Amino acid sequence: MSSTLSMAFEGVLCGRPAAQVLEEIERFHGFPAPGVVVGAFMVDWAQEHIGSGAEADAIVETLRCLPDAVQLFTPCTLGNGWMRVLDWDRFALTLYDRNSRWGCRVWLNVSKTAAYPAIHNWFLKRVPKQALPLESLLESIFEARRAVLSARPVIVTDFLRRPKKESVGICPGCGEAFDPKAGDSCKGCLHGAYFKDDLG
Amino acid sequence: MSSTLSMAFEGVLCGRPAAQVLEEIERFHGFPAPGVVVGAFMVDWAQEHIGSGAEADAIVETLRCLPDAVQLFTPCTLGNGWMRVLDWDRFALTLYDRNSRWGCRVWLNVSKTAAYPAIHNWFLKRVPKQALPLESLLESIFEARRAVLSARPVIVTDFLRRPKKESVGICPGCGEAFDPKAGDSCKGCLHGAYFKDDLG
Repeated sequence: MSSTLSMAFEGVLCGRPAAQVLEEIERFHGFPAPGVVVGAFMVDWAQEHIGSGAEADAIVETLRCLPDAVQLFTPCTLGNGWMRVLDWDRFALTLYDRNSRWGCRVWLNVSKTAAYPAIHNWFLKRVPKQALPLESLLESIFEARRAVLSARPVIVTDFLRRPKKESVGICPGCGEAFDPKAGDSCKGCLHGAYFKDDLG
Repeated sequence: MSSTLSMAFEGVLCGRPAAQVLEEIERFHGFPAPGVVVGAFMVDWAQEHIGSGAEADAIVETLRCLPDAVQLFTPCTLGNGWMRVLDWDRFALTLYDRNSRWGCRVWLNVSKTAAYPAIHNWFLKRVPKQALPLESLLESIFEARRAVLSARPVIVTDFLRRPKKESVGICPGCGEAFDPKAGDSCKGCLHGAYFKDDLG
């Protein structure tokens, strides 16, 4: 991303200058993807709702883009178990207090995007990518900010933090370590391998 | 993590000083988790196998720790779609060339850990956490390096990059955008919500 682009965005987002948000997204995600930038506004709003004092866990409802915004701008990552990701293809996330289970769900609201044609056309895939230059789409996202989002307070009832692993077994199939709660064999041996040996 | 700790680890790992690897892990993951540090050595070895020129995708076989090593030390993240994660609870990862599908699978080899009691006891949960001070476990990991790992060349046959979304529909259940390939309703409405409204 050109520095000209990042210079154009002012204000504070997720506790840092907006230009820094774009740089962090580019470094981690590969480029300043619109979905991750919208995600930063979503995280920012959810954080404001639940307050900075809460020890928050995250639930993300899509694999696309949004998990990276959560991982960059909250302490929650996939590997530390504080972020759970549902492959539901809904552009929504929830941050919630892991003790009280009270939190805030934020989503990109399709009906609100009507006022922002670039966002509307990008989100609903109404025009080909080439017809939507990244810079003008980002400008539209920074113009809209929360105006294309909705948020509401929720109590989380499911998909709470993943259970701690209690013991480790050795799979009789592959000889690798696994969680014996899976059954007699590890899930890899139960599901079948995704690879074959390269004997070439 | 104290700077004393990070100063103690020398050498280059994943293309940067080892101390920086520990700092990046702490910043992203919350602390220098042994699983992410082992993961850095796994990524390092897999990268060496496939070569720096390859456009590599990643498959990780556990949700625990390892996805964060991949996201930190390769260009692959969950949100950009270059990393796929299988909830198989095997401490293994594959980096592969997305064009040729040729790659390298690296795993923490239980039988090799016997020579490194701290790693062995941590990985197999043989002693309580309090009996395994983080610093001595990390020292053991840096002493062992690749000696507790195995690697082999593979051809990836499944779980290749996730498909591109082709169109976007509006779910009649929740009114949110979704991928019509899921069916008549979005997967959220099909699966049931994980939250209830906070009416308090």
